[in-house]
Amino acid sequence: MTDPAVNPWRTLSTAILHEDPWMQLRLNEVLNPHGRPAQYRVVHYKVRAIAILPIDADGCTVLVGQYRYALNRYSWEPPGGGGALDEEPEVSAARELAEETGLSARHLLQVLRLDVSNGITDEQAYCYLAWGLEQGQAKPDESEALRLRRLPFREALAMTLRGEITEAVSVAMVLRVQQMALSGEAPPEVLAALRAGE
Amino acid sequence: MTDPAVNPWRTLSTAILHEDPWMQLRLNEVLNPHGRPAQYRVVHYKVRAIAILPIDADGCTVLVGQYRYALNRYSWEPPGGGGALDEEPEVSAARELAEETGLSARHLLQVLRLDVSNGITDEQAYCYLAWGLEQGQAKPDESEALRLRRLPFREALAMTLRGEITEAVSVAMVLRVQQMALSGEAPPEVLAALRAGE
Repeated sequence: MTDPAVNPWRTLSTAILHEDPWMQLRLNEVLNPHGRPAQYRVVHYKVRAIAILPIDADGCTVLVGQYRYALNRYSWEPPGGGGALDEEPEVSAARELAEETGLSARHLLQVLRLDVSNGITDEQAYCYLAWGLEQGQAKPDESEALRLRRLPFREALAMTLRGEITEAVSVAMVLRVQQMALSGEAPPEVLAALRAGE
Repeated sequence: MTDPAVNPWRTLSTAILHEDPWMQLRLNEVLNPHGRPAQYRVVHYKVRAIAILPIDADGCTVLVGQYRYALNRYSWEPPGGGGALDEEPEVSAARELAEETGLSARHLLQVLRLDVSNGITDEQAYCYLAWGLEQGQAKPDESEALRLRRLPFREALAMTLRGEITEAVSVAMVLRVQQMALSGEAPPEVLAALRAGE
């Protein structure tokens, strides 16, 4: 089944309502797929979301805890952050992992690329599995107040299934790595580490 | 490990930069967790995202295809839409499933509740597994130009793993239902249907 290549929406004009270093809010005057005039507001992201799930030789991962201002709630998530659109996502992933956790990874494998909230935004998330880890010194962003928690991957999975990890990209990534472990699709070093952690 | 209950951010003032029926863009003057003045912009959602993965007696599900204007790309996703914040999410789920696919479900089970893009927004997504299905007439929203595709659940999973389903909540939901199937945690009727579809 092929997807229709042609955009059935027509954009008549675009106004920028707000702009900051992370996003631009655009109000588009459009014709909808039925040809009727409408407005469509789009939040254009100037950065992509980067998330990294590290697995060490003991089958442990690391979660980052922080109070999410927009959500008004505390949240535990795999390490991550924003990557410039013109930077290789893998380069962003290595940097974010090192900044937040102090870990450097010999291997990074992209396991998902996700569209986040595609009714309103064009945000993209790139998700990496990281292994072959070496511990260094974390250098978190000064605006962040982060806590780190090292725990067996199976515990992170259990937290996800209990609804204690709720951030959408994090949940997708944890479930994807679990699926890769069960199907044997994960890299041999990661499979061995996850078995060692059981 | 208990989460810090106290919000380390302080909001000094809030201005509304944009408002429409679906969202409100707020610019907050804040003190960050280190006590330093900053601005934090929040996209407040006036609706929650609702997603429903139906499984019929043959182990098939239904995907909805549409051109996503904000993303500028075609997207296949489980049925869903927006639910009012003051409506029971399960009521929204039953309605969205019926409107988009014509299906009514005897059983709806919430399988995930997700925070979507929590760096910028307070959007919440509620994900349901639906079974015990009866086919009626779809009544899609006039602004939508939707295509429907019925396919075995294992095909929807394969599309997800091949990167042909990329919407974050959809990916999380498909992987969650797969995890429930493999662990035997899915309802017996769903397990039997998925086995029948293999």
